[in-house]
Amino acid sequence: MRHMPNPRVFTCSLCRAKPGRGQTRLPRIINSCYSSLSKSNKDVRRQRVVILGSGWAGYTFSRTLDPSKYERIVISPRSYFVFTPLLASTSVGTLEFRAVLEPVRRLPGGVRFHQGWADEVDFSRKVVRVEANAVDPLPDAMPPSTSPNPSQPLRGELFDVEYDKLVIAVGAYSQTFGIQGVREHAHFLRDVGDARRIRLRVLSLFEQCSYPTRPDNKDGSIATNPLSEEDKRSLLHFVIVGGGPTGIEFAAELHDLIHEDLKAMYPELIPLVRITVYDIAPKVLPMFDQALANYAMEHFARQGIQVRTEHHLERVRVADGDLGRAHGGLSIKIKEYGEKEVNAGLVVWSTGLMQNPFVEQVVGKEFAINDGSESGQSKTDQHRLLKDQKTGGIVTDRYLRARITKDHDSSIGATDAVLPDVFVIGDCAVMENDRSLPKTAQVASQQAGHLAKQLNKSIQTSPTPTDVSNAWKPFKFRNWGTLTYLGGWKAIHQSSADELRGWVAWIVWRGAYLTRSMSVRNKLMVPVYWFVSWVFGRDISRF
Amino acid sequence: MRHMPNPRVFTCSLCRAKPGRGQTRLPRIINSCYSSLSKSNKDVRRQRVVILGSGWAGYTFSRTLDPSKYERIVISPRSYFVFTPLLASTSVGTLEFRAVLEPVRRLPGGVRFHQGWADEVDFSRKVVRVEANAVDPLPDAMPPSTSPNPSQPLRGELFDVEYDKLVIAVGAYSQTFGIQGVREHAHFLRDVGDARRIRLRVLSLFEQCSYPTRPDNKDGSIATNPLSEEDKRSLLHFVIVGGGPTGIEFAAELHDLIHEDLKAMYPELIPLVRITVYDIAPKVLPMFDQALANYAMEHFARQGIQVRTEHHLERVRVADGDLGRAHGGLSIKIKEYGEKEVNAGLVVWSTGLMQNPFVEQVVGKEFAINDGSESGQSKTDQHRLLKDQKTGGIVTDRYLRARITKDHDSSIGATDAVLPDVFVIGDCAVMENDRSLPKTAQVASQQAGHLAKQLNKSIQTSPTPTDVSNAWKPFKFRNWGTLTYLGGWKAIHQSSADELRGWVAWIVWRGAYLTRSMSVRNKLMVPVYWFVSWVFGRDISRF
Repeated sequence: MRHMPNPRVFTCSLCRAKPGRGQTRLPRIINSCYSSLSKSNKDVRRQRVVILGSGWAGYTFSRTLDPSKYERIVISPRSYFVFTPLLASTSVGTLEFRAVLEPVRRLPGGVRFHQGWADEVDFSRKVVRVEANAVDPLPDAMPPSTSPNPSQPLRGELFDVEYDKLVIAVGAYSQTFGIQGVREHAHFLRDVGDARRIRLRVLSLFEQCSYPTRPDNKDGSIATNPLSEEDKRSLLHFVIVGGGPTGIEFAAELHDLIHEDLKAMYPELIPLVRITVYDIAPKVLPMFDQALANYAMEHFARQGIQVRTEHHLERVRVADGDLGRAHGGLSIKIKEYGEKEVNAGLVVWSTGLMQNPFVEQVVGKEFAINDGSESGQSKTDQHRLLKDQKTGGIVTDRYLRARITKDHDSSIGATDAVLPDVFVIGDCAVMENDRSLPKTAQVASQQAGHLAKQLNKSIQTSPTPTDVSNAWKPFKFRNWGTLTYLGGWKAIHQSSADELRGWVAWIVWRGAYLTRSMSVRNKLMVPVYWFVSWVFGRDISRF
Repeated sequence: MRHMPNPRVFTCSLCRAKPGRGQTRLPRIINSCYSSLSKSNKDVRRQRVVILGSGWAGYTFSRTLDPSKYERIVISPRSYFVFTPLLASTSVGTLEFRAVLEPVRRLPGGVRFHQGWADEVDFSRKVVRVEANAVDPLPDAMPPSTSPNPSQPLRGELFDVEYDKLVIAVGAYSQTFGIQGVREHAHFLRDVGDARRIRLRVLSLFEQCSYPTRPDNKDGSIATNPLSEEDKRSLLHFVIVGGGPTGIEFAAELHDLIHEDLKAMYPELIPLVRITVYDIAPKVLPMFDQALANYAMEHFARQGIQVRTEHHLERVRVADGDLGRAHGGLSIKIKEYGEKEVNAGLVVWSTGLMQNPFVEQVVGKEFAINDGSESGQSKTDQHRLLKDQKTGGIVTDRYLRARITKDHDSSIGATDAVLPDVFVIGDCAVMENDRSLPKTAQVASQQAGHLAKQLNKSIQTSPTPTDVSNAWKPFKFRNWGTLTYLGGWKAIHQSSADELRGWVAWIVWRGAYLTRSMSVRNKLMVPVYWFVSWVFGRDISRF
């Protein structure tokens, strides 16, 4: 049974000393004094760091944290990390799904993993309650990665996990702005399950449209329902909502699949295919400057990909008749087109983020903490996590520690108080000194790497609550630039140093991905798949 | 519109001659006389060969048939061929699924493919009616490969396909002997979808059993339901029914997965794992002689795999309580154990074949054929396909042509009549001169290759119904021997030439598979996956 520090009387578990005034004050999280600790690192139980999440922030942090200094426990509904920049490639078969996954359990140095949803956190007792979700008798019974209220068939068992330090890296969900029909009928592209569903759907649409159109029945007694050419144009219309890198890259990859592989197998269908990207902004690819964005648009225009900026989707529904009922066709209402709906076979939704419901729940909860008084009398004030007014994320200081407040309105931080043992990184974090940091993989992984490195250092220093900050460096984001693939072996790249376009950028695009956050296994498999797809074509089997 | 020969008046479509007595008689299937044909092969429309099935028989036939001589049209509910000897490897992740698939549409020389079920055949008019089944809005909505009555959510559209020659290669279904609960709860292993479901289930069971057992909740108010050790032993009991090569290889691969990969990730669970193979026969691996079979059994015994011969399953049901309801555990009733049931987490059913319902339906149907009279008066007698009494398959002659009979009892063949343009190969065929041919991939692929080669030859000869037979060679099966993998890098091989066991057989096992029925792409990918699994371990992510 772990020895839990008694919030009232703090005693070193090793040497039984009670730190008095003037002596080295101990951080609340370690129940041993540092003189004992420095004697033998090996004899001391490692601190237990619980990480919520296995995305860019959670996985990068877990990977960088030193396992000899800390016990790493990862809690996530998903047992693997997804290398998202290559996700669009897997959704059409240029790469296979497993080449972009990194199982959490395979982290070098050993990690404990529990598959489940973090339900709630008790910051006073330093316990996370987890709901297990590995119970999935049907292969696809796991909730979609982007559903805010995963409807699980059974409530999993609950269990508690104690922590010394907690890292909240739960990420964000896809935002559908309440538009009717999106969550039911559109496909997201944030996890491998999403990519797999998209891949199956695209290939299935081509197969469905390839049946003979002429009824060709001799006795006239059996009714057949061949697809008309207009129906086929509807089903082979691929709509992408969101002109950011995800949407643009998916459009590009889809174009490659159709014109490199499907053209040979369904030649009569290719003239009927359309790809359209809709975005409400006046310009797609907002993180690129105008010149590069224009280059991208010209490239798309040559490839036949339509880009409709300043178009607003209002509703998605199942199309009328057999087109919808038998073939899954959709009808989309777009504000700029009035009443006339647009038909499509597939809608991919790749825009907008909203807060994770875990975050919403945890910022609202009050908890009592020991305010660190040495007199032995605790003041158990009610605190809350500080919430960012605009996005709903958790506010952190420059060291990525969660900020707390005593006020009822948790969005106003009256003091500089932090929970020194709770950290927040990634999409769900808002740094108070730089609230405009974008919600990207780069930011998340840099924050995670920085935090892990500070923690790797800190066990050696002689900390006080002030000293922890002094020993640590504040986080500073460095923009390494953006890369986006445009299809047809061309890409664009922009950073503060340079701009690249065309095939040179494509080489950088492919090279850059090999060096980041990938295991050796996938560093090998990704080029193998690129080669195999190039020589033999993409695999088109559906199972 | 294709010119269909008028069954009453036979006229060459090219030279308009009416063949008189003594002139070269034309086979019924070609509507041109051979003098016209020989003038220019290119000007003549290729004969249309429709192949029902994409398994060992159907795919091997399609692959071997010369596309310059024949138009190949493949109809199958599955758009790819599965290289079944390596299927067990994919069910645990030693290989990936796509490395054992060959898409039909990628056959060199071009092939037309329609995804659907052959509903019925009109042998008089030479038309196959097909029900389309590519409509699959949900990824896993396609019926399991082994279900005799696939419950499709929607009836697909129907269309007809005309043929000059028909090759029936629809294969067989898994036989469950009417045992209660098998079709609902057991897993089959005949297609990639099956392998994928097994893989997800095995990995999910380990994940489910890895949650902390100690409730560890401090306030005592939330009930938790941790699995007891006995429950874990139940869930980690893997049962295989059927001691033939499929079942034995799966047990071997499963053992490798557990002891090579899962041991590192779930060390505390490994002592609770059991693998048991049940078979009703007194001996497993019946195609091997006793010495090799014993070697296999000793090898399994050393590995801890239990083999229970002469055990009969009587029922499979969902286990009581949370074990069944929440975790999918099963309870199995075995005759030899009386009332006490055996619990398991997974049951793999790999035994027994039954006739395809298409075959059952097509052997029962009467049809009228022109008996070849030259006088212009047709005699339209009612015929049926000849059915094998014992297995229900379609009887063929030595040239793999479907035998027909006029008798009401279609199992008695009074004449030597055949349908000269209908061939039957693979599991659904029974050769009248060798009714004991086993139902194996070797037999199916040899029959298919033989038939295709004869057809490739036959267009040059001067055929009469008698001459066709003379020009063609009868089929003769050559037993290349059997290979079975036993796990732990050991195998057994037996042929008329030699016997091998141990690692030498393992090398032969791996080498043999590379040379057969595989595209270049997979000949590359299979060794790549073997290497990657060996160096980095099998991938264990579930999605």
